[in-house]
Amino acid sequence: MTTDDRGESPAPGHGTGRDAILRAARRAFALRPYAEVTMRGIAADAGVSASLIVKRFGSKEQLFTTVADFRPAADELFAAAPAELGRHLVVTMLRLRDEFRGDPLLRVVFALGNDDERALLRERFREQVTARLATQLTGRDVELRAELIAGQLLGLGATLSLHRPGAGNSAKPERLVELYAPGLQRLIDG
Amino acid sequence: MTTDDRGESPAPGHGTGRDAILRAARRAFALRPYAEVTMRGIAADAGVSASLIVKRFGSKEQLFTTVADFRPAADELFAAAPAELGRHLVVTMLRLRDEFRGDPLLRVVFALGNDDERALLRERFREQVTARLATQLTGRDVELRAELIAGQLLGLGATLSLHRPGAGNSAKPERLVELYAPGLQRLIDG
Repeated sequence: MTTDDRGESPAPGHGTGRDAILRAARRAFALRPYAEVTMRGIAADAGVSASLIVKRFGSKEQLFTTVADFRPAADELFAAAPAELGRHLVVTMLRLRDEFRGDPLLRVVFALGNDDERALLRERFREQVTARLATQLTGRDVELRAELIAGQLLGLGATLSLHRPGAGNSAKPERLVELYAPGLQRLIDG
Repeated sequence: MTTDDRGESPAPGHGTGRDAILRAARRAFALRPYAEVTMRGIAADAGVSASLIVKRFGSKEQLFTTVADFRPAADELFAAAPAELGRHLVVTMLRLRDEFRGDPLLRVVFALGNDDERALLRERFREQVTARLATQLTGRDVELRAELIAGQLLGLGATLSLHRPGAGNSAKPERLVELYAPGLQRLIDG
């Protein structure tokens, strides 16, 4: 695999477009305090001009809001009936990691810190991922189970990003589903 | 809870000792490239003098080696027979998070990045946590199952650190064990 250890890889035609800018922005906001992030730095990392970023995404704040949005990932992750959701979560997570050339959720863990903008990223995650998932669950302790399911999804991304090369990255998706989905399904069923 | 969002809290008598220095060092090495970390910065964060750190821990490299060591946590986490290990992992993880006033493993996720010292931290994790765990497993795909177990442990820490206050942090440990241990045990049993 050509992805780096953060789970992000240069796009083909690195520097040519939207994806490169978004990846550079995710990296920048995950690694540095908001105040220290500059459009110029993101532009350099993405291999584009700062003015192109402004043209496509608007201000730094607007770019941050775009990057901090977990809804597109949540829309895909949670699009299954409860009885099928465990399997669907693993399959979809693997597919999104592939498509994003990075993990769709893991950046929230890099944002465990104290400044306000990181707090915003965590708040978005809680609303857009955990609270939304809780609404799809029934039975006892739905909030708690939603937190633990979110944890298993973050853990899957974390371990695949850490162990590279590794057994998880070379395993067949079907084998990962077989091993990892039942624990998720048990938390979904409650 | 008084812990901050990284899962680290000021020690009682913040700045008085060993624990404050270790926490400040973990934060510093997790957040910044090795070359940018200074003993002076760690000292300021811990509320002690840089010379006290040198006296207790030696050079910056020695301090990094101390902080990057996952063996003490692994010793406790993996001290159970396979049949009991799922439950033991959850109970021990919760206890260590309490005792460390922080997560014993999660800093490796903050270290997903490209510089050499972060690579060392990840390498340590793979050796001291994942590879060691694999030696305790039997059956098919032990490396893969060890990676997924490590993922679930990282995920538990990540979700408890992210959702604070939250249902996980206010749940009884026994309820967390009941919900989270079976998925781990299934991966242990293979």
